Amino acid sequence: MRATVIHGARDVRLESVADPVLSTGGDAIVRVVAACVCGSDLWSYRGIAPTGEPHRIGHEFIGVVEAVGDQVDRVRAGDFVIAPFYVCDNTCVNCRNGVSTSCLTGGWWGQDDRFGGFADGGQGERVRVPLADGTLVVVPGPVTDDEIPGLLALADVMGTGHHAALSAGVQPGDTVVVVGDGAVGLCAVIAAKRLGATKIIAMSRNPQRQELAWEFGATHVIAERGDEGVAAVQQLTQGIGADRVLECVGTKESMAQALASARPGGRVGFVGVPAGGPELPVRDMFNRNVGVVGGVAPVRGYIEELLPDVRSGAIEPGKVFDLELPLSEVAEAYAAMDERRATKVLLRP
Amino acid sequence: MRATVIHGARDVRLESVADPVLSTGGDAIVRVVAACVCGSDLWSYRGIAPTGEPHRIGHEFIGVVEAVGDQVDRVRAGDFVIAPFYVCDNTCVNCRNGVSTSCLTGGWWGQDDRFGGFADGGQGERVRVPLADGTLVVVPGPVTDDEIPGLLALADVMGTGHHAALSAGVQPGDTVVVVGDGAVGLCAVIAAKRLGATKIIAMSRNPQRQELAWEFGATHVIAERGDEGVAAVQQLTQGIGADRVLECVGTKESMAQALASARPGGRVGFVGVPAGGPELPVRDMFNRNVGVVGGVAPVRGYIEELLPDVRSGAIEPGKVFDLELPLSEVAEAYAAMDERRATKVLLRP
Repeated sequence: MRATVIHGARDVRLESVADPVLSTGGDAIVRVVAACVCGSDLWSYRGIAPTGEPHRIGHEFIGVVEAVGDQVDRVRAGDFVIAPFYVCDNTCVNCRNGVSTSCLTGGWWGQDDRFGGFADGGQGERVRVPLADGTLVVVPGPVTDDEIPGLLALADVMGTGHHAALSAGVQPGDTVVVVGDGAVGLCAVIAAKRLGATKIIAMSRNPQRQELAWEFGATHVIAERGDEGVAAVQQLTQGIGADRVLECVGTKESMAQALASARPGGRVGFVGVPAGGPELPVRDMFNRNVGVVGGVAPVRGYIEELLPDVRSGAIEPGKVFDLELPLSEVAEAYAAMDERRATKVLLRP
Repeated sequence: MRATVIHGARDVRLESVADPVLSTGGDAIVRVVAACVCGSDLWSYRGIAPTGEPHRIGHEFIGVVEAVGDQVDRVRAGDFVIAPFYVCDNTCVNCRNGVSTSCLTGGWWGQDDRFGGFADGGQGERVRVPLADGTLVVVPGPVTDDEIPGLLALADVMGTGHHAALSAGVQPGDTVVVVGDGAVGLCAVIAAKRLGATKIIAMSRNPQRQELAWEFGATHVIAERGDEGVAAVQQLTQGIGADRVLECVGTKESMAQALASARPGGRVGFVGVPAGGPELPVRDMFNRNVGVVGGVAPVRGYIEELLPDVRSGAIEPGKVFDLELPLSEVAEAYAAMDERRATKVLLRP
């Protein structure tokens, strides 16, 4: 079969690889119906995170189960499934605590071969899914083609935006600032509205993304960044700052902007993979009682909750996909996101 | 009258100063019945925070109102009152948001002369209280002498421990670690128990403080610190870490210990004035979804809630006072706390 392999900075290739085979009894083979490129894939693509040995890449996909191991109970051949961006058993103490990203037996697509053989990435024709009972969420059929983008968004970006909002503690009536206009930031706008925020300030200078932010529920859009961006937030919040700030980028600058946008007693929910620095200014957080909560989003636990709203059309996170390409053009998919020609690329094998 | 003035490192003196006089219409004169020395006063006493010009010091006191300005409504001469460790109007947007420590018109005892004249500290015979309506909480009489320590604890340490527990999100059934065995840490043990924590692990190597921690509701006491302390916490929590960690010290080491003691998805509530460094390790927080929430505790808002439990004896934070001295021995009070001969010293003018 064909699957995507990253060899180094700006070097991703669709290659012929061995077909996955069941090997642990608890695994499943999934034929990928749609996959996508994540903003965090760009850290490797840009060489910010070194690649080391070439390895399979991709961690967001949906598909149809082709076969399951003999210990798999909850998933059957023919099921349409959503895979979260990581593997988890969904039964250990961390999973039960709602932090399945810290699953005691789980791991990461494409990077972890503890599961009985080479770990597949999601940007391929098929994926062997270890811990299939814990990892996969079945979507009751039939699934129509126009549902594909929305379901794929549940593999990562919609749940990640939701995690930012939950971590920040968004409540009805809140004023919320969203830092970041990538797919996660835009989904964070959806999540803030869904949780009842009444003033939602999206920070974006890109006309297409601004448009989507408005459509998703933003009540204000601020194009300025840094000190000017913070000043604009203050102007919209009586000089106090926002109740909640959703940090969906991960750079030192975006976190600084998020902290400065929060009101005393406010909270930053952060989900951007921290790439810009190891520090948070504890003294400023202390003086103003601004908390910072978040991390790698345990989206597996959110899929069932969000799925009905996606299928009913109450929320439309699938709209973040503004480019669709065949899997054979995966290199162009990366380039389009790297050069910000696309917000989020959907790939069809 | 006599009041305490700090001149520099290890140099506090009881001096003759001018009697306070009403000057803004919104102020009150309070005769101090009891005051105390705060752990944070020791930062100045030890020279870690430079003193600059000699100034009045002390920010925890209770007393009886002697006179009020003509715009004061809620407080009358003769009232027994608790003063929080700061001044606030209790009406601005930040106060309404529960963050009266960020009051738009408030300030700090002894350091702020915006209020119509030299700002008094609490370690004196009398204090002029600006914004008396917002700042002071009336204790319905009669107040007996044995209630004094418990009421004084509400001026800071009990509310601060409570803030740590609230910031960490302590809920019934939680496992809670308390880092720090000073008066605030001990009050945090009380607060964790009061909020329903079932396993409370106090970190202390001091026999007297261990004893008080047990009495306040600790279910386990760990004497080890650093990596060994973290290992002991892990052993008591099935290798996962604690749901909530209350950081009541403020050094870089104590924060590192707190972060490492939290389970994935857990939260650190921090109230120790950060003295050891400006950084929090955002990448570790991200990877394990460990949030950090807290700051300078808005105790004004907690006094009414906690007062009934103190008066009924349901909680006994007054037991943190293990030394009582006349105000004339204020220098000895500082020395006793500095040398850890006393946990918390109560001063009587």
